[in-house]
Amino acid sequence: MEGTPAEAAVLSTVFAEQPIARTDIARRIGLSSAAVTRATQPLLDAGCLEYNEAHATDAAGDEATSRMGRPRRPVRIAVDYTGTFGVKLTHEEVVGVLVDFGGRIRGQEQRTLVGTDVDAAIETVVEIITTLDKQARKLGFTHPADHVGLSVSGDVDHATGRVRYSPFLDWRDVDLGARVSQATGKHVVVENDVKALATAEQWFGYARGLDDFALVTIGTGIGSALVVDGALIRGAHSVAGEIGHLPVGDPSVLCRCGGHGCVEAEASTAALLSRCREVAGEPELSLRDAVERARSGDAAIAAVFVRAGHLIGLAIASVANIIGPAQVIVSGEGLTTYDFIESAIRDSFAEQTFGAARQTQLHLQPLPLAEWARGAAAVAIEEFAFPSRLASGRRVFGGSHV
Amino acid sequence: MEGTPAEAAVLSTVFAEQPIARTDIARRIGLSSAAVTRATQPLLDAGCLEYNEAHATDAAGDEATSRMGRPRRPVRIAVDYTGTFGVKLTHEEVVGVLVDFGGRIRGQEQRTLVGTDVDAAIETVVEIITTLDKQARKLGFTHPADHVGLSVSGDVDHATGRVRYSPFLDWRDVDLGARVSQATGKHVVVENDVKALATAEQWFGYARGLDDFALVTIGTGIGSALVVDGALIRGAHSVAGEIGHLPVGDPSVLCRCGGHGCVEAEASTAALLSRCREVAGEPELSLRDAVERARSGDAAIAAVFVRAGHLIGLAIASVANIIGPAQVIVSGEGLTTYDFIESAIRDSFAEQTFGAARQTQLHLQPLPLAEWARGAAAVAIEEFAFPSRLASGRRVFGGSHV
Repeated sequence: MEGTPAEAAVLSTVFAEQPIARTDIARRIGLSSAAVTRATQPLLDAGCLEYNEAHATDAAGDEATSRMGRPRRPVRIAVDYTGTFGVKLTHEEVVGVLVDFGGRIRGQEQRTLVGTDVDAAIETVVEIITTLDKQARKLGFTHPADHVGLSVSGDVDHATGRVRYSPFLDWRDVDLGARVSQATGKHVVVENDVKALATAEQWFGYARGLDDFALVTIGTGIGSALVVDGALIRGAHSVAGEIGHLPVGDPSVLCRCGGHGCVEAEASTAALLSRCREVAGEPELSLRDAVERARSGDAAIAAVFVRAGHLIGLAIASVANIIGPAQVIVSGEGLTTYDFIESAIRDSFAEQTFGAARQTQLHLQPLPLAEWARGAAAVAIEEFAFPSRLASGRRVFGGSHV
Repeated sequence: MEGTPAEAAVLSTVFAEQPIARTDIARRIGLSSAAVTRATQPLLDAGCLEYNEAHATDAAGDEATSRMGRPRRPVRIAVDYTGTFGVKLTHEEVVGVLVDFGGRIRGQEQRTLVGTDVDAAIETVVEIITTLDKQARKLGFTHPADHVGLSVSGDVDHATGRVRYSPFLDWRDVDLGARVSQATGKHVVVENDVKALATAEQWFGYARGLDDFALVTIGTGIGSALVVDGALIRGAHSVAGEIGHLPVGDPSVLCRCGGHGCVEAEASTAALLSRCREVAGEPELSLRDAVERARSGDAAIAAVFVRAGHLIGLAIASVANIIGPAQVIVSGEGLTTYDFIESAIRDSFAEQTFGAARQTQLHLQPLPLAEWARGAAAVAIEEFAFPSRLASGRRVFGGSHV
């Protein structure tokens, strides 16, 4: 595979709408049939795609034949093409999955992390990959499972596979990609966890088939990954999707970023809890208790959560006014813990979106850790299926073959 | 030309860096040399591009020969390929330009509009195109100048060429594209004026060669056009770049859009003037006088302008935090009239941008109406050079040939 933009467009369309005939792919992505056929052939040759023979037989006759008299021969993803590993690291646990080329999870491993020691964490990651690799061999993919995606929160340098800074893991400048590659002999790519989750949603999940969507995560941090025209926005200076620092809050509140009125300064879990403690006059109040009181009608505590939901809604509305996604998926551990802020988010979003942007679908959806790990695998799949995308920033390390 | 994404990438790279060898194009856009050669050939065949023979001769020897021993044969834009017309309509005047395929303005016509009558305006547009068409014939382009781009402020439906709503012209649902096409026999495409101006900057102007930039216009309205990965963001619901409705202002101020705290509600020219009148206690104060007083040290009036600059800076910082452009160009009649708000814009931008987004270049640049008209021409050029982009929303009308 050459990994041209046209090939990427074809592959993502097949993922979204398989089985699908090339004429329909052409219509969907706005290229000529000739260009689509040219882009599809290397994918068929490489074994990523296959003809959907069953469908062609079922639908013999008119449906399987184009007006040109040629069989339409729909194509689909060859799920057994290869397996890919995805691992999500948090400061509390490591979750790894093995997915097939269709994105289905075929194996899963989970380990608890005690502390944020780099060596121990890397050892755990390697252990998980080794275990999943045995499962991959038994499943008998056409090509060996040689690619690993790792996802970590914070500032990740795709170009070097280094974790520049991960506040929750308290890691600075960790050479994660190279070290895991050396220990496992696999190609390893490292990505920010929210961007990786968005990639999973785009290829296999809730945003499948959407060229324009946003994934917003709320909790310890408030972040987002934005997909425009099918591609993740990375920002010319590696900053993008920083909705936690939109100044839609109280301008007198200073954020640790140096700005004022940032959403995160009032609506992150820590900011919320600190405000609840202030309001209740109880410096030891736990998040669990604060949530409990908000649920059971403590108006002052509830107002703190509603205010956070309001600011998150304004931030999402800002994204809608600026880039106009078809859908916004809201997730993250904050949503799981205090899901009752949903109506505040929705109300502020509806009020502040401009004109037709009000039609944007808001999809509030808690997602399990395994889904975040699948995101890391999706990033690795994107890497090896579309090497041309490397130009836009990520680098794949080592591995036993090229 | 087939108008594939690869062809678009090649052509825009040649525009930005001509003369340029195909090996350098390949490096620049991250495609293989083979893919670039495949994408360049139809552009050469069509006569859009030509070999830079002069350069190949000058640089005979090592420089003109690749390591593979083949001549590098740099290519450049064939400026005489065809001429294109661009017309910008405001409620006060109509400016038209004739540009060659290299984007240079080769002819210009300007007429004053009295009133906003649709028939009179269309008659003026047709008159300007007819005059410029005579000039085009004299210039002797290789292909006749058959394409027109029209740009209008407000809500424009690219798919149908209709102006849905233009507040300043006070037009609703005007079938502008079809009517001008019928009267001139040309292919006509209609675009929102800010988006068109961004297209000109991307192809020929200040943002040439940039894949990620924002154009912000301040004045009667506050808007923006955003280019990510080389393409204008249009939004799934045709709403994008609405930075005038980011809620970074006073949350008690209601905007005519129904939201609160919108930038436009405090920083548009009308909002500014109204606030200046309030502060001065002079309901008849003119904008010119308000600007004069701010310049000559009236602290209360100056504060109103500084506040507007502050909000505009926050809005631009929000764009930087969300999409991470390499450069932001700020223009519009507001900038021309009250350019002294520049430092307020810059200060707030610097304070509110997150991390490396602070490195975003802010380029404050008043642009003449002819440049806006060149934007309309750039949109038309994009249309006929890249028909595949039609899939993303615009439609070209009629014309004497296909």
